[in-house]
Amino acid sequence: MIALITDFGQDGLYVGQIHALLAADLPGVQVIDLCHTIPAQDIRAAAYLIPAYTRLLPPESIIICVVDPGVGGNRPHAVCQSDGHWYIGPDNGIFDVLQQHAHHFMKYHFSWPGEVSDSFHARDIYTPAACLLAESGTPDVLEAQQVESDNLRFNPDLNEIIYFDHFGNAITAYRYSSLSEKSLIHIKGQALPWARTFSEVEQGACFCYENANGLVEIACNQGSAKDQLGLKLGDMFSFK
Amino acid sequence: MIALITDFGQDGLYVGQIHALLAADLPGVQVIDLCHTIPAQDIRAAAYLIPAYTRLLPPESIIICVVDPGVGGNRPHAVCQSDGHWYIGPDNGIFDVLQQHAHHFMKYHFSWPGEVSDSFHARDIYTPAACLLAESGTPDVLEAQQVESDNLRFNPDLNEIIYFDHFGNAITAYRYSSLSEKSLIHIKGQALPWARTFSEVEQGACFCYENANGLVEIACNQGSAKDQLGLKLGDMFSFK
Amino acid sequence: MIALITDFGQDGLYVGQIHALLAADLPGVQVIDLCHTIPAQDIRAAAYLIPAYTRLLPPESIIICVVDPGVGGNRPHAVCQSDGHWYIGPDNGIFDVLQQHAHHFMKYHFSWPGEVSDSFHARDIYTPAACLLAESGTPDVLEAQQVESDNLRFNPDLNEIIYFDHFGNAITAYRYSSLSEKSLIHIKGQALPWARTFSEVEQGACFCYENANGLVEIACNQGSAKDQLGLKLGDMFSFK
Repeated sequence: MIALITDFGQDGLYVGQIHALLAADLPGVQVIDLCHTIPAQDIRAAAYLIPAYTRLLPPESIIICVVDPGVGGNRPHAVCQSDGHWYIGPDNGIFDVLQQHAHHFMKYHFSWPGEVSDSFHARDIYTPAACLLAESGTPDVLEAQQVESDNLRFNPDLNEIIYFDHFGNAITAYRYSSLSEKSLIHIKGQALPWARTFSEVEQGACFCYENANGLVEIACNQGSAKDQLGLKLGDMFSFK
Repeated sequence: MIALITDFGQDGLYVGQIHALLAADLPGVQVIDLCHTIPAQDIRAAAYLIPAYTRLLPPESIIICVVDPGVGGNRPHAVCQSDGHWYIGPDNGIFDVLQQHAHHFMKYHFSWPGEVSDSFHARDIYTPAACLLAESGTPDVLEAQQVESDNLRFNPDLNEIIYFDHFGNAITAYRYSSLSEKSLIHIKGQALPWARTFSEVEQGACFCYENANGLVEIACNQGSAKDQLGLKLGDMFSFK
Repeated sequence: MIALITDFGQDGLYVGQIHALLAADLPGVQVIDLCHTIPAQDIRAAAYLIPAYTRLLPPESIIICVVDPGVGGNRPHAVCQSDGHWYIGPDNGIFDVLQQHAHHFMKYHFSWPGEVSDSFHARDIYTPAACLLAESGTPDVLEAQQVESDNLRFNPDLNEIIYFDHFGNAITAYRYSSLSEKSLIHIKGQALPWARTFSEVEQGACFCYENANGLVEIACNQGSAKDQLGLKLGDMFSFK
């Protein structure tokens, strides 16, 4: 299985080209559009969403991850092996949280021979590299070299809003399992209660809960927490 | 074939997880994203769109239907058998119009054993239940119990706008076949003429027609009926 | 492989119906959503995007192209054979640029027998026609007649913005390969420098480059050229 996580938007001009290439190179492969709405060029959001939203994929899945504002520049190309999954994409920080959450993690850098576009490495490098990896099962096929990563850009958890879903729920970069106790979350001058799920609070009430992918989420029963609380990406919260 | 109708938005974080699960459990199955833009948490819109937009699916198709504001609460889980199709989802009213339009309809309730998230039953209950149903061809595999539904929330037709498409066409919950005669539709103080298709009216003119799925639709030739007439979801019309 | 290019929006009510039909008629076929965000009813944008964004598809691919404001009216139905690809859709001008860019091009018109909706020929005519073509490999199966096209609506290149991507990059209808020299592009009173890729200019700076599909594109490093320059669809530029 090959899964895609990008900031391309699903129905624009880019995702389809990747699918076409995968279908031509690996006929019959299952290709999953896991998410194409990472906030544009937001490496930090990608870094926290990638581990949370790929945990449940089957073993040996290959995940092409592309949030790549430096495309065509000198950031390296990486393949990571992390708890039984493969990840491919630009090594610009998007794999730094994954590395810290993983039990087993190895990172490789590789060069890509041949001519490619300067602005669409997802199509011209990471997708064909994923095909080679799928066929061979080893990064050796990319002549990849294992590298150590010490200078990580991000902490394992972050008390910040990184994504709004379609309903206006605010997804944070904080794992529920990292909470030492159920402290109340304070944001925009309000203390939000915890609940198990939407129907446990009044209609229109805002609350916090552990979302279905293990992250702390700020939501509103039958409404938009984003609108109700006036939230925006990057808003921070505190525990009290 | 497994089809999905939800209010999740296609390119967010949710639909891909369902696809990944289906691809892992039923390799090679055809999965169709029929619609992920039901207005958020709008059970009524779902109830009318589900029968109209699944009619043409092949026999034995399984349709996972999820508009579920009460997720994690006590609404039952349902499987419906309706004119040769299977439908799975929360029994919160989304199947009530389907039941009234169908020639043959049976509804079953089932419980789901094991641990699930409190907010993503589409992934944790309805999708694996659909896989079991696909493999076995019978709701017995879910230990489902047939139930009678008498208290239906919705009428077979409704003179209301329930959906705007990408072009600003306004889809109503009224079947064209339910019109006794071609009465004029009055909305926002205007009487709209009937036409067969867009090119039959002047550019920029608004009109009514039978859309390609049998519903009455308010449209504008090469423009947006929504903007032109100032329409919004829930606007009602009358016949005169 | 069957690819789709339309102005339907991907996650509305239309694309899924086409996928369902293809899955039923041609089980196992690879269906690629190449783009569903052609600006609504914009034949000109479609005419220029179709050749640029289908070039790299594998030989024998069938591309269903639908931007069809005249649906149900008297424009002909066309199949085009162009440099090893098949294209099906309404003959309203959307194939006119393709014809001029192609080395080998033939156009056929066909009639469609049987009952169809008046507003969804993509589903009722072009999709089943594509299935017949896929199975037979020849337009004869549609009883198609070859036609000459002399009155083309569009030039091979156009100095105009025809599409904004998800990031606010402005795609033009001008091929980079048609530039006689690297003249500066002037738009909105500004002369834009050329660059190879995003990371070559300052953060927030606007520039022109050859995009990954061969078109001249106006972009902004880590920002939106659309917002930065106040661009809109149809804005023209000059070379100086």
